[in-house]
Amino acid sequence: MNVTLRGRTQPHRTVTFDAAKNEVCLIEQRLLPHEFTIFRTRTYKETAAAITDMVVRGAGAIGATAAYGLAQGARAFRGSDLKRFGAHVDEVFLTLKEARPTAVDPLNAMLDVRREMAAGESVGEQQALALAAAEEFANSDADHCRAIGKHGAKLIKDGMRVLTHCNAGWLAFVDYGTATAPLYAAQEAGRSFHVFCDETRPRSQGATLTAWELAQQGIPHHIIADNAAGHLMQRGEIDLVIVGSDRTLGRTGEVANKIGTYTKAVLAHRHGIPFYVAIPLSTIDWEMKRGFDIPIEERHESEVLGAWGLVANPKQEGQRPKTGKRAYVRVANPSSHARNPGFDVTPPELITGIITPEGIFKPRDLWKQRGKLGGPNRGH
Amino acid sequence: MNVTLRGRTQPHRTVTFDAAKNEVCLIEQRLLPHEFTIFRTRTYKETAAAITDMVVRGAGAIGATAAYGLAQGARAFRGSDLKRFGAHVDEVFLTLKEARPTAVDPLNAMLDVRREMAAGESVGEQQALALAAAEEFANSDADHCRAIGKHGAKLIKDGMRVLTHCNAGWLAFVDYGTATAPLYAAQEAGRSFHVFCDETRPRSQGATLTAWELAQQGIPHHIIADNAAGHLMQRGEIDLVIVGSDRTLGRTGEVANKIGTYTKAVLAHRHGIPFYVAIPLSTIDWEMKRGFDIPIEERHESEVLGAWGLVANPKQEGQRPKTGKRAYVRVANPSSHARNPGFDVTPPELITGIITPEGIFKPRDLWKQRGKLGGPNRGH
Repeated sequence: MNVTLRGRTQPHRTVTFDAAKNEVCLIEQRLLPHEFTIFRTRTYKETAAAITDMVVRGAGAIGATAAYGLAQGARAFRGSDLKRFGAHVDEVFLTLKEARPTAVDPLNAMLDVRREMAAGESVGEQQALALAAAEEFANSDADHCRAIGKHGAKLIKDGMRVLTHCNAGWLAFVDYGTATAPLYAAQEAGRSFHVFCDETRPRSQGATLTAWELAQQGIPHHIIADNAAGHLMQRGEIDLVIVGSDRTLGRTGEVANKIGTYTKAVLAHRHGIPFYVAIPLSTIDWEMKRGFDIPIEERHESEVLGAWGLVANPKQEGQRPKTGKRAYVRVANPSSHARNPGFDVTPPELITGIITPEGIFKPRDLWKQRGKLGGPNRGH
Repeated sequence: MNVTLRGRTQPHRTVTFDAAKNEVCLIEQRLLPHEFTIFRTRTYKETAAAITDMVVRGAGAIGATAAYGLAQGARAFRGSDLKRFGAHVDEVFLTLKEARPTAVDPLNAMLDVRREMAAGESVGEQQALALAAAEEFANSDADHCRAIGKHGAKLIKDGMRVLTHCNAGWLAFVDYGTATAPLYAAQEAGRSFHVFCDETRPRSQGATLTAWELAQQGIPHHIIADNAAGHLMQRGEIDLVIVGSDRTLGRTGEVANKIGTYTKAVLAHRHGIPFYVAIPLSTIDWEMKRGFDIPIEERHESEVLGAWGLVANPKQEGQRPKTGKRAYVRVANPSSHARNPGFDVTPPELITGIITPEGIFKPRDLWKQRGKLGGPNRGH
């Protein structure tokens, strides 16, 4: 999607590869929304560190980063001994796998790359195939998101006011994003609409990342406190809700997503407002039998007890307030503690539809459609 | 309620009067929860400035401050000329009235004091009556809150988990508070329970003021992001919700309160969790015919776009993290704007009961009970 720097707007992907220099190029997400820079890794070890240190985050984005990292590591090998090359690639694979051990996307992406590489009969051929496979993975991630956008854009009519929660945007994937893809496609189709971004405490991904994306794209939007969505719905100021998902149960249609998603679904249901979840197929869990079993991560209490930002003058208006250095402020009472569940589970009866690259489905129809959606027992 | 300073716990009121020095003593609320100090005003002009500058906030607390301020101003008069004294008191009255022109509590409190003063036949007598009337106003505010506590405490059983929103605590009144009064009364009755404080973005009164109050009182509690309440309800971790109210419509039972209250009411309703609103009688509006007409203040966007706190190390644990100076951090994307409605309106069908100093009533029964509740056409 677009990034505007010093008045010049140009298309960008979250993750790209500089083949001439053998460098992975990442949008440095830890500095957003206050600063835009490209973080270049010169070695696969630097790429692994960038994944660990959250330079890049989001399912598709870390998948593509690991795929490129594997190609980068493979391409750095000097020599023609296939056996030594294989041992080197194993080492690269393990290093990148351990960069974010609980994430499934880097692992799947790298398994793809290794499968494709295997057809090469020399080190040179395998190196070339590795890069081609990594590019293919990144393109395919972008294509899936674009397909989500194509299907979801039909839901967005001229003049609509759309609520989003957290950031399931292009920064979390290679391009387009999931919950944001329908917005970008509707904009491309010439429709005008307004977006309300839940700030999404405690980590504020809505106020920081989603708002940054929308601003770069020139989509009119307002940030709101998470507390304000109910009031806006009550006053008829929201027409549609689109969110992402960290895990969707293929058997039940239950959706695990950022804490607060369930609340927005309950509110939308009360007000008869359509509530959609946009997902790539890779986040469908075809095994688990009930949402109650999804482990809910309890995160560090400091996220709730304070906030990160740039020290600034609160009353200063305008496009870019004059700000100082990045700091954490403790907001809460010093002797109090917090509970901080990171995710919640929304039941299917509150979800109007699941937007996938293959079309929009009722949450309870996912299992019936598992053939189309890459589920088990596809019969081929 | 209690305040613990350097290991010593002693009872405190939000507003008191030092008759020997003719000074109003206020808990400096702008420094809470990070610092506890008493702000003394030496003249009625300083008292008016303290109201304007938010040293003190909350309906009952600013009412009592204005009442004491009027007595303070009256007592500073030297001489025995009743006419000149009357003109001086008019001046004091106007200055304090203009300190917070939209608030009804300071005005009503000062009208009370002036009515009582009028019986005095000399300057000295009127000065003494003014102070007695101001003390009476403060005591009566505390008594009303204590009565709310007595009625509300019956709802809190041993082992319960209670959710609160914003701060309708003793800091907003002279003592006890409204939404917090049942908690303090239940604690006094020896019951054990746990409180979840919504942080209450964007101004974080739950994380700062309510959490501070509960910590001072030794009531076990956790702060949660506003997004987390729905998840906790879904998992069966909340048994009761008690909130305050800025305005309750006597004709319909609708409740205007801090933004996010409506959301918690919708969630509680879905989960069959009792939802109570604690109010002093002075906040019942007997005139307005529908909640939709309650003006919803749109506050400054900086509240949503960032946060105030003390610069700190986020990972530092313990009772009192080492913190630096107070600062505002800009969290949100620099070029984005925010909507910031300050209040919302909860309909009566979502409210289990209204806790008043006169007992607990169904919201739709307020009008029927208006005789008891100080409403119009009382027939006496």
